[in-house]
Formats: sequence, structure tokens, C-alpha cells
Amino acid sequence: MPVGTGGSVKAVTPDELRSIGTGMILGNTYHLYLRPGHEVIRDLGGLHRFMGWDGPILTDSGGFQVFSLSALCKLSEEGVVFQSHLDGSRHLLTPEKVVGIQESLGSDVMMCLDECPPHSSPRECVESSLALTNRWALRSLEARVRPELGLFAILQGGMHADLRRRAAESLRGYPFDGFAVGGLSVGEGREVMLTTLAATTEHMPEEKPRYLMGVGAPVDLVEAVALGVDLFDCVLPTRNARNGMLFTSQGRVAIKLARFERDPAPLDETCGCYTCRNFSRAYLRHLYKSGEILASRLNTLHNLYYYQTLMRRIRHAVEAGDYVRFLAEFRQSESRGSGV
Amino acid sequence: MPVGTGGSVKAVTPDELRSIGTGMILGNTYHLYLRPGHEVIRDLGGLHRFMGWDGPILTDSGGFQVFSLSALCKLSEEGVVFQSHLDGSRHLLTPEKVVGIQESLGSDVMMCLDECPPHSSPRECVESSLALTNRWALRSLEARVRPELGLFAILQGGMHADLRRRAAESLRGYPFDGFAVGGLSVGEGREVMLTTLAATTEHMPEEKPRYLMGVGAPVDLVEAVALGVDLFDCVLPTRNARNGMLFTSQGRVAIKLARFERDPAPLDETCGCYTCRNFSRAYLRHLYKSGEILASRLNTLHNLYYYQTLMRRIRHAVEAGDYVRFLAEFRQSESRGSGV
Repeated sequence: MPVGTGGSVKAVTPDELRSIGTGMILGNTYHLYLRPGHEVIRDLGGLHRFMGWDGPILTDSGGFQVFSLSALCKLSEEGVVFQSHLDGSRHLLTPEKVVGIQESLGSDVMMCLDECPPHSSPRECVESSLALTNRWALRSLEARVRPELGLFAILQGGMHADLRRRAAESLRGYPFDGFAVGGLSVGEGREVMLTTLAATTEHMPEEKPRYLMGVGAPVDLVEAVALGVDLFDCVLPTRNARNGMLFTSQGRVAIKLARFERDPAPLDETCGCYTCRNFSRAYLRHLYKSGEILASRLNTLHNLYYYQTLMRRIRHAVEAGDYVRFLAEFRQSESRGSGV
Repeated sequence: MPVGTGGSVKAVTPDELRSIGTGMILGNTYHLYLRPGHEVIRDLGGLHRFMGWDGPILTDSGGFQVFSLSALCKLSEEGVVFQSHLDGSRHLLTPEKVVGIQESLGSDVMMCLDECPPHSSPRECVESSLALTNRWALRSLEARVRPELGLFAILQGGMHADLRRRAAESLRGYPFDGFAVGGLSVGEGREVMLTTLAATTEHMPEEKPRYLMGVGAPVDLVEAVALGVDLFDCVLPTRNARNGMLFTSQGRVAIKLARFERDPAPLDETCGCYTCRNFSRAYLRHLYKSGEILASRLNTLHNLYYYQTLMRRIRHAVEAGDYVRFLAEFRQSESRGSGV
């Protein structure tokens, strides 16, 4: 599930997303709240209609962008006050308001407002932040007026296994429609990330979807599925694409490199995407070096196709009861530098 | 025929161009010569293969970009020395070299190197420049080694009717595959442009294609066809699209305007393009205001579709022997402000 900004996966159309097998997309509550405004979107029939996407939509809570993009950012029990990065205007987001915004958008999967403390925070900060996040989650549940729209709680707890367990045990008894693992992939390194993830998923309900937020590289997805994760979101495939970093069966490729100047081969011989079926590495390099919009488009299509194909292979392996072997093979190709 | 830069119409794919009925595209010799280099493209099988376009391609001579983009620019009988706008490297373009570059690209319609003096030049400069352009045209003809590729001469002569006539009469007897009218739409105003065009086309061969370079707005196309023009190129539809200026049956629309904020209607109710079939003015405004790549794409598709539809209507009116009426109606709608 690729991330978009403001309710569109940058550079591609809904039709293209469908054509590569995209099931679900993500809209950013923060961006849509500030521009064009959730009430504008609601009055125009909701986000699906606004952007021409008839599949499911997940929206984040906006909290991550508030903490990472906005100038001022003041936290209290009530919520968080922040200044728009667009015009400096001041806004208060509360758990209740965040649910209300997502209900206005008509999101299929809404996320509770949470706080994600910096990776370096002392344990007592992580602990009190976790408690706040949990209280906010219950307020979110109370605030919901459209029960047909799913609501996921977010589990925090930093890199502390016992706090992660506490997060899961505190919230698992409540009627959320799914649970997300937040606060990972924030600079802790892959090994710590996976250990912490394992300490979390272990205590999560079996019967509800598990969503790992903001992850990740292909190998992260493969490893996280082994730990029981069902759902991901990440800017990596699309942002890398716009920066000319492409995922292939032979590893990552920086398309700007001089060695592709006269290379008539497709980017990935084994790939069936529009880009690989129609264009050479030499042409993709030329478009990228020339700053053409078409470079962003063709690269994005390729990387999304790569991720969709990977997720399809993962699902097949899971369904075939063959995931242990799949994981071992993927790790092996990764260690050869070609599994990306 | 829309203009692209460096051999691609910005933001759209060959498939999309085909789907809206595009017959022919234009590649910029100057840009392709500097990056990735015509020899690279030749070695990769020519421009058609390089960019995945199997329809006809017209390439300009590069002269226009040399005069408008490059830092230094020194003219002599031999050709023109200029500095690359990319890296400051120094290059000499001669009529012979320009034909050679276009033959390397495998262009279906090549243009002769010409000089287009500034609009404000005194008559004697225009006259000597015209003489040089004509000598260059004959050298271009001599230089051609791939006779299966078409070569068009360019008629100059400023805004002087007698020099325009001289241009046409000097070159019409030579075996060019078509003739272009250059040096118009350079700030002289529509009325002078059309008067000068008429003074040129009057003396051009009937049986060969007539190409008006760098023109123009929809009404310019309609007027120029009445004066016998067959072929156009212009950045207007695509550049305007990227700047949010859209052509519609009700006139030009600046999509950023606040009045479209909550407008659920398609951009143009009468338009059948992908953009108008799928998205509202409100969404197009949102994408544009957010600086999304998708804004450039959807706007470009619409404007190209508008131009293709206009050219189709023009051809039908010509074929039906009904052009006088069509022209009158178009002028009338133009004067009402809706014919754009």
C-alpha cells in the first residue's frame, strides 16, 4: 500500500494504480485538513469521489506530520496545537477532531491520534507518552459516529519490550477494527526494529489486521510478515522513484549512472510493468537527467509494480504454507545483494 | 502537433498521445544534440525507438534554441558558434551538421538551419539574414544523405511582404519536401502576423505541405488554415497546461481561481478527455495548488485533447468545403470571449 500526499499517490492516476493491482491507498489527514480542507472534500462527496478512487482508503491521523512538518507544536492532555507549514495559521487537533476529520473524508480505515516520542527519549517519557496515546485511543473510539468506517488504534512504547506489551494489552480488549504498530523505523536500525516488532505482535489479537506504519524496504516487509504483519505503508517506493532509485530483481539501481547512457536493455528483464515493457535504461536515464516529469511517472510505476509483485509473492507463499522457505530464500538473495 | 522538449511531450506517454489522436510529434534537435547526444540516440536505433514513438517525428533545426537559450552565439557564413546552456561547452552548428544530426535521430521531417533576426531589426539586416537563410537551405539540401527523410526549408523575411515573396520564390523551385514559415509570432501582434503570413503563403507551392512554426492560440490556427497552412507546432497547449491555464469550449480557464474550490463540475462539460471524464474542477484546482505532478499530467492531457479536437473539426470543415462558415462561426465565438 503506497503512501501518497494529500490523497494522491504522486505522479500516477487512479487508473494506473488499479492496473498494477493496487488494493488500497493512503491519504494524509494533515495535508487534506489544511488543503483543500476536510469540509470541502465532505461537501464534494468524500475523498473517494474527490480523487476518483473507488477502492478502500486508509487515512493517517495527521499526528506524524504535525510533529515532523509544523513549526510550533504544543502537546497537552487535550490534544496538540500546531502551526500550518503552509500559512502559519494555528490549529488544535484532538483525538475527537481527528476522527471527525477522517469521517468527513469518508476514510475506510481511520487511525487514532497518537504521540510518537523521539527515538532518543528516556524511558519515563516513552512511558507517559504511551499512557497518553492509550487514553487518546479510547477517546477516539468514543468519538466515532460512523461505525461503518474502520478505526485502528496505534501501539507505541518505544524500543521497550515491556512497554510494547503494555500497549497491546491495554488496548486489545477494545473494539478497534485493527491495530497498528507505530514508532518504529525511526532510526533504530533493522535488528532493533524487528525485535521490537516481535515483542509487539506477540501480544496483538490474532483475528484483527496488524498494520506496521511507515515500513519499509522490501526485506523489511518480508521479515515483518514473518512476524505477523498484514499491512504496510511507506513512501520508499514512490519517493525513491522520483529520486531515480529503482527496485529490481537484481537489486537497487541508480538510473542516473553513466553506465546506463547507451544501455538498450529494459530496467529489469523480468519485470512486466509498463516502463520495463516500453523503455530502455538509456531512455530512463535521459528522462531523469533532463528533469522530465515523465521520469517521475515511469519510475513510480515501476517501483509500485515491484512492490505489488513482492506483496503478491508474499501472499502466495503464506497461502501455500511455504513462508519459511520463501523467507530463507529472500534473506539469501538479500545477502547476495540482489534481493534488495 | 504539440511541441515537446528533448523528444518527449512533457508529462505524457506515447500511449496517451496516441489515445488522444496525436499523429505527429516534434523533437528538439538542440536539446537532443546536447543531451543525451544524437550519436547515443543513433546507436540506440534512432529517436523513434529511443522514446517509444512509432508515429512520424518532426525535428526542428536547433537554431531557435541556439539563439534563445545559449550564452554566446556567433554567426558567420559557415554557421553558428554557441555555448551550451547546460555546461558552457562550445559548439559549431552548420547547415550540414544540422542535417546530419537529424539524420542520426531518424527524423521523418527535418528542418533546415535558418536565422531568425529579432522583430525590431532594420530592413537591411532582415534582407541579408534572409539571403543567408536561403544559402543555408540550399546547402542543407546538398548535405542530405538519407533522401527517405523529408527536408523542409524555412521562409524568413521579417514583416516585409516583398521579402517574404522573395523567400518563397527563391526556394520554391528546389526539391524540398515542404516549406515552413518562420519568424512569425515573435511579438508583432495577430493582425501583422496574419497579413505577413498571407503575403508568404500566396507564393508557396500548392502541392507541398505548409508549416507555420511556433503558432499558436486556437484562433491563430483557425485563421492560418484559412490562409493555407497545413501544419503547426506550439508549446502553448502544454506549457499553459503546466501553468494551470486550460482551454475549454467556454474560453480559457485559470484553474487556480478560488471560485473552483468547491466546484464539482468537470472542467468542460462538452469534453471527452480523461481529465474531464474523471475529475472535478475542485480536484484539479487542489492538485494544481498542491504542486502535484498529476496536475501537470491531467491538465496537459486536457489541453492536448482540446487542440486535437479543434484540428479534427478544422479538417472536417475543410473536407466538407464548409470552411468559410466554420471560420465565421469561430470568429464570432472568439469575439464573445468563448472561442479562445
